[in-house]
Amino acid sequence: MDEKFNVMLSKNIPISDQTLIVGFPGVGLVGSIAANFIVDSLKMEMVGQMQSDKLPPAAVVQEGIPLPPVRIYRSDGLMVLISDFAIPIQLSNTMAQTILGWQGGRFKAIIALEGLMAEPTQEQVEAKVYGVGSTDSARKRLTGAKLEIFDHGWITGVSGILLSEGNRIGQDVICLLANANAMYPDARSAAKLVETIDALLPEIKLDLKPLIDEAEKIEGNIKEQMEKAKEIVSARQGQADKMTKSYMYG
Amino acid sequence: MDEKFNVMLSKNIPISDQTLIVGFPGVGLVGSIAANFIVDSLKMEMVGQMQSDKLPPAAVVQEGIPLPPVRIYRSDGLMVLISDFAIPIQLSNTMAQTILGWQGGRFKAIIALEGLMAEPTQEQVEAKVYGVGSTDSARKRLTGAKLEIFDHGWITGVSGILLSEGNRIGQDVICLLANANAMYPDARSAAKLVETIDALLPEIKLDLKPLIDEAEKIEGNIKEQMEKAKEIVSARQGQADKMTKSYMYG
Amino acid sequence: MDEKFNVMLSKNIPISDQTLIVGFPGVGLVGSIAANFIVDSLKMEMVGQMQSDKLPPAAVVQEGIPLPPVRIYRSDGLMVLISDFAIPIQLSNTMAQTILGWQGGRFKAIIALEGLMAEPTQEQVEAKVYGVGSTDSARKRLTGAKLEIFDHGWITGVSGILLSEGNRIGQDVICLLANANAMYPDARSAAKLVETIDALLPEIKLDLKPLIDEAEKIEGNIKEQMEKAKEIVSARQGQADKMTKSYMYG
Amino acid sequence: MDEKFNVMLSKNIPISDQTLIVGFPGVGLVGSIAANFIVDSLKMEMVGQMQSDKLPPAAVVQEGIPLPPVRIYRSDGLMVLISDFAIPIQLSNTMAQTILGWQGGRFKAIIALEGLMAEPTQEQVEAKVYGVGSTDSARKRLTGAKLEIFDHGWITGVSGILLSEGNRIGQDVICLLANANAMYPDARSAAKLVETIDALLPEIKLDLKPLIDEAEKIEGNIKEQMEKAKEIVSARQGQADKMTKSYMYG
Amino acid sequence: MDEKFNVMLSKNIPISDQTLIVGFPGVGLVGSIAANFIVDSLKMEMVGQMQSDKLPPAAVVQEGIPLPPVRIYRSDGLMVLISDFAIPIQLSNTMAQTILGWQGGRFKAIIALEGLMAEPTQEQVEAKVYGVGSTDSARKRLTGAKLEIFDHGWITGVSGILLSEGNRIGQDVICLLANANAMYPDARSAAKLVETIDALLPEIKLDLKPLIDEAEKIEGNIKEQMEKAKEIVSARQGQADKMTKSYMYG
Repeated sequence: MDEKFNVMLSKNIPISDQTLIVGFPGVGLVGSIAANFIVDSLKMEMVGQMQSDKLPPAAVVQEGIPLPPVRIYRSDGLMVLISDFAIPIQLSNTMAQTILGWQGGRFKAIIALEGLMAEPTQEQVEAKVYGVGSTDSARKRLTGAKLEIFDHGWITGVSGILLSEGNRIGQDVICLLANANAMYPDARSAAKLVETIDALLPEIKLDLKPLIDEAEKIEGNIKEQMEKAKEIVSARQGQADKMTKSYMYG
Repeated sequence: MDEKFNVMLSKNIPISDQTLIVGFPGVGLVGSIAANFIVDSLKMEMVGQMQSDKLPPAAVVQEGIPLPPVRIYRSDGLMVLISDFAIPIQLSNTMAQTILGWQGGRFKAIIALEGLMAEPTQEQVEAKVYGVGSTDSARKRLTGAKLEIFDHGWITGVSGILLSEGNRIGQDVICLLANANAMYPDARSAAKLVETIDALLPEIKLDLKPLIDEAEKIEGNIKEQMEKAKEIVSARQGQADKMTKSYMYG
Repeated sequence: MDEKFNVMLSKNIPISDQTLIVGFPGVGLVGSIAANFIVDSLKMEMVGQMQSDKLPPAAVVQEGIPLPPVRIYRSDGLMVLISDFAIPIQLSNTMAQTILGWQGGRFKAIIALEGLMAEPTQEQVEAKVYGVGSTDSARKRLTGAKLEIFDHGWITGVSGILLSEGNRIGQDVICLLANANAMYPDARSAAKLVETIDALLPEIKLDLKPLIDEAEKIEGNIKEQMEKAKEIVSARQGQADKMTKSYMYG
Repeated sequence: MDEKFNVMLSKNIPISDQTLIVGFPGVGLVGSIAANFIVDSLKMEMVGQMQSDKLPPAAVVQEGIPLPPVRIYRSDGLMVLISDFAIPIQLSNTMAQTILGWQGGRFKAIIALEGLMAEPTQEQVEAKVYGVGSTDSARKRLTGAKLEIFDHGWITGVSGILLSEGNRIGQDVICLLANANAMYPDARSAAKLVETIDALLPEIKLDLKPLIDEAEKIEGNIKEQMEKAKEIVSARQGQADKMTKSYMYG
Repeated sequence: MDEKFNVMLSKNIPISDQTLIVGFPGVGLVGSIAANFIVDSLKMEMVGQMQSDKLPPAAVVQEGIPLPPVRIYRSDGLMVLISDFAIPIQLSNTMAQTILGWQGGRFKAIIALEGLMAEPTQEQVEAKVYGVGSTDSARKRLTGAKLEIFDHGWITGVSGILLSEGNRIGQDVICLLANANAMYPDARSAAKLVETIDALLPEIKLDLKPLIDEAEKIEGNIKEQMEKAKEIVSARQGQADKMTKSYMYG
């Protein structure tokens, strides 16, 4: 646990009545896509970020504004934690502990979004969402929403620790797993996650109509950004390689 | 010894009259399979877990309940320590010292379960269990139970240190080595281990009749979990690779 | 953030009315070339350097004078930070924080120079400069100078953190990105950066006439230095390999 | 020097009148074989061990008794330090300093055993022993025993530091180098080392008659142990690979 | 700067009137060869050594005497620092700082010896020496001795930092670069370095007549030592590989 996340908030938000949605890329990038859609759809306010030297140093420019890669958003009763990069495996534990002990308090509930790799043989995958709950009350919410339970298997990364630790300390954690295509950003699968969140959280109303359209647009943007990033980075790397390979063994 | 195990117990259990069974995967996964069977068979209660940043961050979902990978169980006079993952080699020493100096006390006895690779030429291996003891009294128990002694060779990992340190400090440690098939979870070999433990511990009664059936079912479950895990992980990795290889040399 | 930069200044310069230009190699080495030209053109005084064990240990000999690789120059109202080597990715954050919290003070403005990889299909790239600003006032300067805005995408490395942190703390940061050829030192692209800086900073007057000529000469020098460095280093490495590969596993 | 050896002795032995023989594997394993023979032949008592997290965690089972890999033996006036594993290169310095500053005292003399690779072209190598001494008195003992002097070259690892440091601080250190076959445990070469030690230490009497027979038996045992270890380890590794490669990039 | 050099001197030598010659291997090993020749020629006394865990643990045996790899010699007004191994790149800074702040004092002058790779196309290279000086007075000495100035390029490693830091703090540092053949120990090039030192230091008189003969003998010895070292090491490594590859994944 050497490398910690540095949580920087522009305002102090009491969290005991807040639900936190955790949207990291995952399979098919479904976590990021769904979380970004919710933030846009509810016009949530950015209230903070997390920093770590283990995350790639970068700004994400959106409409000319440079933003950090791990951002925290908020509206009434809801907070969203988004990362544009996968959380390095060795930071999973620290990230989970940061969320579970957020500023010394505890969230009303935590909903972690994950992609579940669809069978590789299925060409057309019907998006489907499974749920796991850390506590009896979390599991009741899942059965109440008629979600299929993910009852045997492993869940790795931040979500895995959130679930197992949630079980130990009695924190309501729900992990939603949407089967997704691992080969490209799967916007339809992300849409299914958003639909499920809408059903689980009666206090928010997500306009589901333009969802698929929006999701497809987001998907396009992400692809384009990945291409641009790849270009910038590989050029820089090519240059850096030429410059630096000389001085490695001076 | 930088990376320590964090032992978390839900209740304080005096251990001077407890026997601890240590079941880590090992050859043929016999340690885990045998330990899981004993826990189920005796309906033991989960009383704690061990955490480490060097273990893969993951929850093991069993019947919809998310659990940590390294778990501690207990019933009258008996404790079982199970890990679903192999203990990383650099943590072997810390794990052994954690067990030998458990909360400042000492177990009545420690029984470590290991698989011993069967000769690769033998297609059908008759399961057979060998024993090593750290002390005269431990060795007497082995000969009293008419177990064949493993008298020359190396025992690596946590069991190796438990034995050698047990010898030095006078802690009764018994290591049971069942020859096993290294290619798949070897439930029959695990069953032989359970039978041996039943003979060594008169204070417990394990119903041996449904053992093979149960063992084979456990074997099936583990295989299935490994397949599922592989799918989830390789998908996630494929995605992560695509996302991350770009920002390594920004 | 283990490895810090050691900032060594020969004189204490209050910076609240200083603009800092940051010129690191980047795509096409445009950052270094442009910064070196400005320093020569304005006959700026070298006032300090940065040291780090993560930077290659080396002296850059210029006209017989050995200099450190990361140098700080100054004239009225303007400071320039030059590195002849790419900043290692794991030092990006430390470098950005060093700049943003310079001796406890804050610059009037920071201008970071970057190359933006030109489309690989374009054989002849017309040099073009895009801008991103961290604050409203920074963005106003860009639009006032009729610069095209880089409105979506990722900016990695020191510049990325300068922008995103500048946004958070209200420090004016401008990143100028010139599309450049990644295969060789792109002096024409660097010249375009200098021209843009001249337009953005009315307080300085850069004689643009001999610019292209000068830039091409600088370009030639850099190529020559890279060749020489490569020779020295690969020879030394060949020798070192022969001497050292023997004692790795004594 | 981060990783230290933990020296654990069951009894406090004043060492100013003790000669220490250091027998680590080395070329042809001659150091271990010779040291093991001396311990058996003189029926020396095991009085301690060294531990380090950098050594492989393992017990060496001998006649049913689990022992640590680095052991310390003693009889009147003589101590032997044996390691069954090569000392990792990064621990060489720590090991040498531990020996040279043993519990704050100093040995009467230290004799380090090494193998010297025989010319690869020589099929039949006649075992021959060379000596190096750290001090004038150590060199006198070598010439007194008519040993050929190793007068130019490098001696790496623990023995190298023992010699060079012994020279600096005036500690008598003798390094005996037997030319040996690097391809297998070279018992005959080890026997030549034992014969030389017998000549150098008039206070002990080693029965040289059964030496070759014994040495060959030891050689056989070591080979057998290596085979067994390889089997156990590769099986465990195969299993571990299957289990673990999945969770590396969760 | 985690790993420091441990400077160990057998006597305290005030250095303000001492010139230090730094001879590390470098291209063609010219630094070591030249420094060794000067030490032998002036019959200088060994007065100390430097230790570091990052240097290979080894003794260099010369005429039967085991010596450390990094040695310090002295005669009236002159000190020589020799390393038989290349200084690891990550220790360059520490080494340079150790030299520049020697026991809290400062040398009258420092002369660092380097090889400069000859053009690979030149079969017969005429040995030629270039010079760089850190200060005006150092540069005057170079021009006074009619040495050609190395006026543009990079100098890496310890010499690079000595020059750049010497410039900053006003310490006279001269780096002499002899073009040398990188493929083998280049004794003629080393002889040219010695000749240049003889011209720069009127207070010493080096008998230049037997120089080439001596240099060729030294060259032969070094080659022989390298061969022997390679044999010992590769044998040890082969053995170590066989022994250790088994226990890496126990």
